[in-house]
Amino acid sequence: MNVQDTIVALASPAGAGAIAVIRVSGAQALEITSPIFKSVSGKVLSEQKTHTIHLGHIMDGERTIDEVLVSLFKGTNSYTGEPTVEISCHGSNYIQQEIIQLLLRSGCRAAQAGEFTLRSFINGKMDLSQAEAVADLIASDNEASHQIAMQQMRGGFSNEIAQLRQELLNFASLIELELDFSEEDVEFADRSQFKELIARITKVLKRLIDSFATGNVIKNGIPVAIVGEPNVGKSTLLNALLNEERAIVSDIAGTTRDTIEDELSIGGIGFRFIDTAGIRETVDVIEGLGIKKTFEKIKQAQVVILLFSANEFLANAESFKTEIEKIKNKFPLKPLVIVANKVDQVSESDIKEISNQIPNLHLLSAKENKGVDELKTKLLEFVNTGALRNDETIVTNSRHYDALLKALEEIEKVQYGLDTDLSGDLMAIDIREALYHFGEITGQVTNDELLGNIFANFCIGK
Amino acid sequence: MNVQDTIVALASPAGAGAIAVIRVSGAQALEITSPIFKSVSGKVLSEQKTHTIHLGHIMDGERTIDEVLVSLFKGTNSYTGEPTVEISCHGSNYIQQEIIQLLLRSGCRAAQAGEFTLRSFINGKMDLSQAEAVADLIASDNEASHQIAMQQMRGGFSNEIAQLRQELLNFASLIELELDFSEEDVEFADRSQFKELIARITKVLKRLIDSFATGNVIKNGIPVAIVGEPNVGKSTLLNALLNEERAIVSDIAGTTRDTIEDELSIGGIGFRFIDTAGIRETVDVIEGLGIKKTFEKIKQAQVVILLFSANEFLANAESFKTEIEKIKNKFPLKPLVIVANKVDQVSESDIKEISNQIPNLHLLSAKENKGVDELKTKLLEFVNTGALRNDETIVTNSRHYDALLKALEEIEKVQYGLDTDLSGDLMAIDIREALYHFGEITGQVTNDELLGNIFANFCIGK
Repeated sequence: MNVQDTIVALASPAGAGAIAVIRVSGAQALEITSPIFKSVSGKVLSEQKTHTIHLGHIMDGERTIDEVLVSLFKGTNSYTGEPTVEISCHGSNYIQQEIIQLLLRSGCRAAQAGEFTLRSFINGKMDLSQAEAVADLIASDNEASHQIAMQQMRGGFSNEIAQLRQELLNFASLIELELDFSEEDVEFADRSQFKELIARITKVLKRLIDSFATGNVIKNGIPVAIVGEPNVGKSTLLNALLNEERAIVSDIAGTTRDTIEDELSIGGIGFRFIDTAGIRETVDVIEGLGIKKTFEKIKQAQVVILLFSANEFLANAESFKTEIEKIKNKFPLKPLVIVANKVDQVSESDIKEISNQIPNLHLLSAKENKGVDELKTKLLEFVNTGALRNDETIVTNSRHYDALLKALEEIEKVQYGLDTDLSGDLMAIDIREALYHFGEITGQVTNDELLGNIFANFCIGK
Repeated sequence: MNVQDTIVALASPAGAGAIAVIRVSGAQALEITSPIFKSVSGKVLSEQKTHTIHLGHIMDGERTIDEVLVSLFKGTNSYTGEPTVEISCHGSNYIQQEIIQLLLRSGCRAAQAGEFTLRSFINGKMDLSQAEAVADLIASDNEASHQIAMQQMRGGFSNEIAQLRQELLNFASLIELELDFSEEDVEFADRSQFKELIARITKVLKRLIDSFATGNVIKNGIPVAIVGEPNVGKSTLLNALLNEERAIVSDIAGTTRDTIEDELSIGGIGFRFIDTAGIRETVDVIEGLGIKKTFEKIKQAQVVILLFSANEFLANAESFKTEIEKIKNKFPLKPLVIVANKVDQVSESDIKEISNQIPNLHLLSAKENKGVDELKTKLLEFVNTGALRNDETIVTNSRHYDALLKALEEIEKVQYGLDTDLSGDLMAIDIREALYHFGEITGQVTNDELLGNIFANFCIGK
């Protein structure tokens, strides 16, 4: 990876818009940009202060490509930690390409995915977990995932890890020092303090590892299967949850099938709804096929909503109950919410009768917006939002999760060593391994392949 | 149209990217942005200089929405001519929306399409034809249309009109002055100078009006119909013109039908190629239908390329000649380029024989890239690129074209008045009409409906 040259990329989203931003970063950013920029005021670009904006024209020889604003970031005072010039041009695809081509001809190299953030990491502007949070932040599409990414980008996670690593490092050096004086049988590292630290590290690691389940759900959204025959009101339910007329709701069974697979944010958490055919009225030629498909979809989901029409229940009570039993038997551990929709269409006594037959039934009138907020609350109960509310650090990245698991394994070995009075030189090996895995998270320990993998997931221009 | 309030919109293209830019403009831009921006350095935003950039966080109360760069444009020192703040945030859709929503809650109004440019016009930063050029510039997708839009945006067109208008205005006031002194029969306006001005205006107007044909072609691209049976090499030809493997070229007749309708830029001019079935081997049940379709497409085109395979010609010479005659008879004025493709597959003597039978035949081997550059040159000859090369003003906007036609009509009336010694008061009416139409172009004469129509074509955020 060459980090000496000057790179260029479009930083704003691809496509036409009012304006587009082209980012140039590297030692030669100013030297390359100055000759093709003709300031309106006649000022020389390289003589201007950092964090200033200049109006002028991008010139390809005598030809004017565009009137632009140029933002200067000098020295290490930039996102990348190296001289940076941002060109804000008119957002036509043609102009974007012309300016980038001109910069490439003038000595820039086209930036690879994530290369600006990679340089930011290499130049010490952020650690590796913060760099990874940048990609998470851009990908975040709801309040919770945004909040976690923001916390991680601001160093919440890596600060905690870095501090524990530093404390562990201090003990490691004391223990290694003991080895140098092994003939004298001295003990520089206070064993009781060390035990206390290892216990503390174990606790933090376990908490962080546990948070991954929540973090993963929040980052990727919670898959919810809605099981129901056509025309029981699946689209109406989604619209009610969405509070807007997103899907066209029709009385013709099956018309909205394609539109109800949707993502929506409830209480800041992303939910992915998966449309699933009911298994009550199986009409497949090969009967098993329909049920198999439904079961596959339920398997992918984390929560299941079984939806039926209240006005159809009493006439078919037994087949409904069979359906519920089938699902419960197949997925005994999967949270199941049974919802009777269209309660506005049946009498009070019928509702009582249905509720008697199905325990824990959730009554809903999506049409009249009754029971919708309660359903939202019920869905949110399946997410551990406590951690979020308490502003605790949550692990969302599987690479971090992996490193934490490995670090915990080593720390447990150290604990065992302490418990069994293992000799210092053997314990030192385990401590070094734990330190290694801590360092993997923050990027103090790294290699080109790892960096390549991480930044390949970024968009170009970031 | 309220131009007193402060407006906000996403200025970068919609979608996720590395960064996004949100633009806030209006008297309260700084007052609205300051309270939600927490500078990293602790500086107060409103006390900073214009054209400076500040790192900090957008805060919704205690909640951090994003780490951003804020660019300040104070006083009238901005695109809109009013205080402007540009927020450069991480390019997630969620963050873009959260920041815009926060600004709306803080007192901004969502900008309408083109409203920033409208304010720029109202605040005297640009005239109306320059404002219109901004939209053309963003829509430009080739060198020629880009160059014309850039020239218009920089005032080339309106400067010329404004200057003539000023000269005409001077004479108009002298003639109106004569009317005040009508009893004394004085002549303040030198009639020979006035005649000279009217002649000059007429010349310029005619040149501008004539340029519209070229301008229109350049702005919208030149439609070229390629007439040819399947498998004569239409896709190969387009690829050769494109210099890249864009369409998959196959030997199976008809396989690439859908892909050959394409736009490409030759010598900086946009060409739109329209795939047209040949009329030689009509296989339709109702024979006329195929021919009718082809003729319709040829009618839309400005240039026709009739493409055939050299190796098929001699065996079917008469039917080919009939085909050519049919097209020539139907469209006697339409430029027609007859191209023999695959000349690499026939002998020298056959090529001579074919060339003898078809005058002005263009020989091509798209496969071996022979005759491709010559075909490009031939296509460019159909466009009047002289005006472009000489940096002459070209009219591309039909509104301008319309106003120019009306202005010419009035100027010709004035000319007639001068020739027939018409009384000053009658002539003054025609001059005023001409001045009105000049003013329509630059926006000195305008109304809300006109402005509404013009800026509705802009994108939001511009």
